[in-house]
Amino acid sequence: MKFDLNILGCGSATPTVRHNPSSQIVNFRDKLFMVDCGEGAQVMMKRLGLKFSRLSHIFISHMHGDHCFGLPGLLSTMSLHEKGGMVTVHMQSEGIKVMEPMIRYFCDNTAYDLRFEPLPAQGVVYEDDGLTIETFPLYHRLPCSGFIFREKPSLLNLRGDMVRFHQIPVRQLHAIKCGADFFKDDGTVVPNSHLTLPPRRPVSYAYCSDTVMDRRVAASVKGVDVLYHESTYADDYEVQAVHRGHSTARQAAKIAAMAGVHHLILGHYSKRYRDLSPLLAEAREEFPAVSLSDEGRVFDLNGLARQ
Amino acid sequence: MKFDLNILGCGSATPTVRHNPSSQIVNFRDKLFMVDCGEGAQVMMKRLGLKFSRLSHIFISHMHGDHCFGLPGLLSTMSLHEKGGMVTVHMQSEGIKVMEPMIRYFCDNTAYDLRFEPLPAQGVVYEDDGLTIETFPLYHRLPCSGFIFREKPSLLNLRGDMVRFHQIPVRQLHAIKCGADFFKDDGTVVPNSHLTLPPRRPVSYAYCSDTVMDRRVAASVKGVDVLYHESTYADDYEVQAVHRGHSTARQAAKIAAMAGVHHLILGHYSKRYRDLSPLLAEAREEFPAVSLSDEGRVFDLNGLARQ
Repeated sequence: MKFDLNILGCGSATPTVRHNPSSQIVNFRDKLFMVDCGEGAQVMMKRLGLKFSRLSHIFISHMHGDHCFGLPGLLSTMSLHEKGGMVTVHMQSEGIKVMEPMIRYFCDNTAYDLRFEPLPAQGVVYEDDGLTIETFPLYHRLPCSGFIFREKPSLLNLRGDMVRFHQIPVRQLHAIKCGADFFKDDGTVVPNSHLTLPPRRPVSYAYCSDTVMDRRVAASVKGVDVLYHESTYADDYEVQAVHRGHSTARQAAKIAAMAGVHHLILGHYSKRYRDLSPLLAEAREEFPAVSLSDEGRVFDLNGLARQ
Repeated sequence: MKFDLNILGCGSATPTVRHNPSSQIVNFRDKLFMVDCGEGAQVMMKRLGLKFSRLSHIFISHMHGDHCFGLPGLLSTMSLHEKGGMVTVHMQSEGIKVMEPMIRYFCDNTAYDLRFEPLPAQGVVYEDDGLTIETFPLYHRLPCSGFIFREKPSLLNLRGDMVRFHQIPVRQLHAIKCGADFFKDDGTVVPNSHLTLPPRRPVSYAYCSDTVMDRRVAASVKGVDVLYHESTYADDYEVQAVHRGHSTARQAAKIAAMAGVHHLILGHYSKRYRDLSPLLAEAREEFPAVSLSDEGRVFDLNGLARQ
């Protein structure tokens, strides 16, 4: 069951020749969810073969241009591609006030319905059969939202041998996968635990950009499998990081350790670092399982959660 | 005296992996002038080594996203680069109404003064010692402006041999370069034509995107040296071109021939053409001196005017 993270941009405020500003796509069982939409996101989607038709929810963390300037272009292009159905942009209400009029002007005749949904400070902002997406506060220079993607627990796995042995009718299998016992015609009960095996552990992924290092962030993402945490600077810019509302790679790793996550992905790099290996090395001094994000890189979240 | 055209983007409505949407920089004696600003323009400036500090005037032809969605990002980035002085965005008043509030929100603390200047339907919109920029109407699905960059005539060239022979004092040389005769102490007059050679012919460049083929466009750009004319389609889409307010490459070439220009540059290609050689071939059947624009290509306008 696909649960991938596609990095479209992992640079910071200024786009460079090397990095795009922030944007990523979570592909959950072929439904695409975009988190942040810096300039160039739409071209990266094309480059990675991610279909506009599968994207219906876009989450914007905060109102800095490097996280949202790709939105007018993306939404216009989706319209030209005859994307149908509904597209929902989840962003802070101030952002909606600023960007919706401009976007509506250019996207006045879309084949899809465009909806802007204000983000709450905290809570579930999306839910379907297999997934919930929650938001929680980050601590930046202006209101900023993190997001957690949580796969819902799967149903129990049926034991084929026992189903055949007890000759369980097909119409009862779904109830048993949901945890029901099986009542035989002779009145005896076969307990569910004889008929099923536990389901695969559900996987979760958290996105934290932009933020200073803050224990409350660690509390919010406690126990997620994979954490993307901004790491704008290396140790050499620790003082500036606080001042600018950002984190160092080492601080990102400290949050990962505090939260007990399984794997940490670094991103939102300052343009000052051509070579990112110091960020990786400093993070690994605090927490072992760290990867560097890079434009075009695709992370298999199931795989990272199992490692 | 530098007069270059830098192509930042020459695709049409949808950005592709191959082409950026419309944007170009005219470099006139190291002052940069941007015409249109599709998404990705700022990154292309970096890629071509064009300095933000030298850019003070941006002209937007019309209010379709592929000609202006790069503006918020560019203006924000210029602010981060501590660009000083004044930046003027010339665009239609409706565009200012739509985009200025959003841009002001994100660029609230720029080191430069940001000014939005409504474009008139016709006339001079910029002038300095060496250059004028005029606007004129194009014929698209909504109001659209073309631009002509005209180098001003240079001063006359002094003949060094004659200056020495007549022992002309330095303080009189500027007047002679402007056309004055030289009055000798003995009362005789040396006519200007003995002292000077004609100046280099001034060079002009016109930008026409987006537009249907229209004789009025040919009249507006009559006699310019180099013409950039949109050529969204090849002959196979001639009918659609009219319907969508665009031109074919052949039609662009017909306009070039009608206007008696020296060289034609094609651009604003539809994403349907991976191979642009049919557009070039069809244009050359109507007009011999044609070039294809391409991202990163730099045209020496002086050179093209002299060819």
